[in-house]
Amino acid sequence: MDFSSKLLENAVNEMAQLPGIGKRTALRLVLHLLKRPKEQTTQLAQALEGFRNEIRLCSNCHNISDTELCEICSSNRRDGSIICVVEDIRDVMAIENTAQFKGFYHVLGGKISPIEGIGPHDLTIEDLVQKVAGGGIEEVVLALSSTMEGDTTNFYIYRQLQKFDVKLTTIARGISVGDEIEYADEVTLGRSIVNRVLFANSLKGL
Amino acid sequence: MDFSSKLLENAVNEMAQLPGIGKRTALRLVLHLLKRPKEQTTQLAQALEGFRNEIRLCSNCHNISDTELCEICSSNRRDGSIICVVEDIRDVMAIENTAQFKGFYHVLGGKISPIEGIGPHDLTIEDLVQKVAGGGIEEVVLALSSTMEGDTTNFYIYRQLQKFDVKLTTIARGISVGDEIEYADEVTLGRSIVNRVLFANSLKGL
Repeated sequence: MDFSSKLLENAVNEMAQLPGIGKRTALRLVLHLLKRPKEQTTQLAQALEGFRNEIRLCSNCHNISDTELCEICSSNRRDGSIICVVEDIRDVMAIENTAQFKGFYHVLGGKISPIEGIGPHDLTIEDLVQKVAGGGIEEVVLALSSTMEGDTTNFYIYRQLQKFDVKLTTIARGISVGDEIEYADEVTLGRSIVNRVLFANSLKGL
Repeated sequence: MDFSSKLLENAVNEMAQLPGIGKRTALRLVLHLLKRPKEQTTQLAQALEGFRNEIRLCSNCHNISDTELCEICSSNRRDGSIICVVEDIRDVMAIENTAQFKGFYHVLGGKISPIEGIGPHDLTIEDLVQKVAGGGIEEVVLALSSTMEGDTTNFYIYRQLQKFDVKLTTIARGISVGDEIEYADEVTLGRSIVNRVLFANSLKGL
């Protein structure tokens, strides 16, 4: 693409470094800013820089936070005896949106993935083990996605926490609420039959 | 969405104001920046602000430009007797990429659209008329998109330029190069039959 303007070219190139944004989309976005008041661009630029430079990771759960301890970890209305292990910050948001979990979180920062060169020591697993070793924790819920990497990570954590007197659970896999049984894949359907629950219990959370 | 971080929320909200970027995409983009060095965010922010605050419109053709006159208008290798009228800056880039046009451009800044409240005086049509009235221009090529608004704008310009001794042309409509004739829509196919060209002429530009 020939831009005939270094300023435009520079803006498009920087924008196109974001994932899923190609040069054409970047051009559309940048030219859109031109139609808006200058303040909008200033606010966008400041919001991005402010976020990137001032955001911290909670010292307890590794969730992103504006302060030393995140809102969840500094709340006194949560149950400190149960920890939910998730891959990243977006999973915390997804689970918080369900309003079904009242314990604390532990953000791993990824999954064990030999292909991508991510080993256990690149994640916050050691920190989780020390938290559990410190006592006071009764249950650790593994809430990782159900992929090869997720299963590997689950198993690694299981081996690390086996020696402690802590209940290890994993979130239920099964048919999505609202899904037709005939269209479900057989692995999911199989698991949801093997792990069937008492009907009375299935009414919880409704 | 519950962000638990004002900095994150602010960044996502600003990002989600861009066209075609929803809250979820904005969150993905913003969290991506967190995985990259801080410099990348700084560069992005500076590139956007620099572009928005320093970019100018060429005083001759209204194309965007880093300088008073854009690269095209300040070139002495272009043909000043022919002007191509386009809707916006991206059209200039598209036509320049074809390397088939050696005249100057005139960027209207939009199309006449009563529905969106855009009248002739919101565009740079008056400026075009004065350019033509000033003399030295032999041909004006109308290169607007073939929509209701494009046709209206074409016709308005035609009426304004009628009184001058200038050739008014419009870009050819027809079957796209590489397209199958059987799948072409009938209006396009019809136009390409009515406006058929000498075979020898069709070899130009190849």
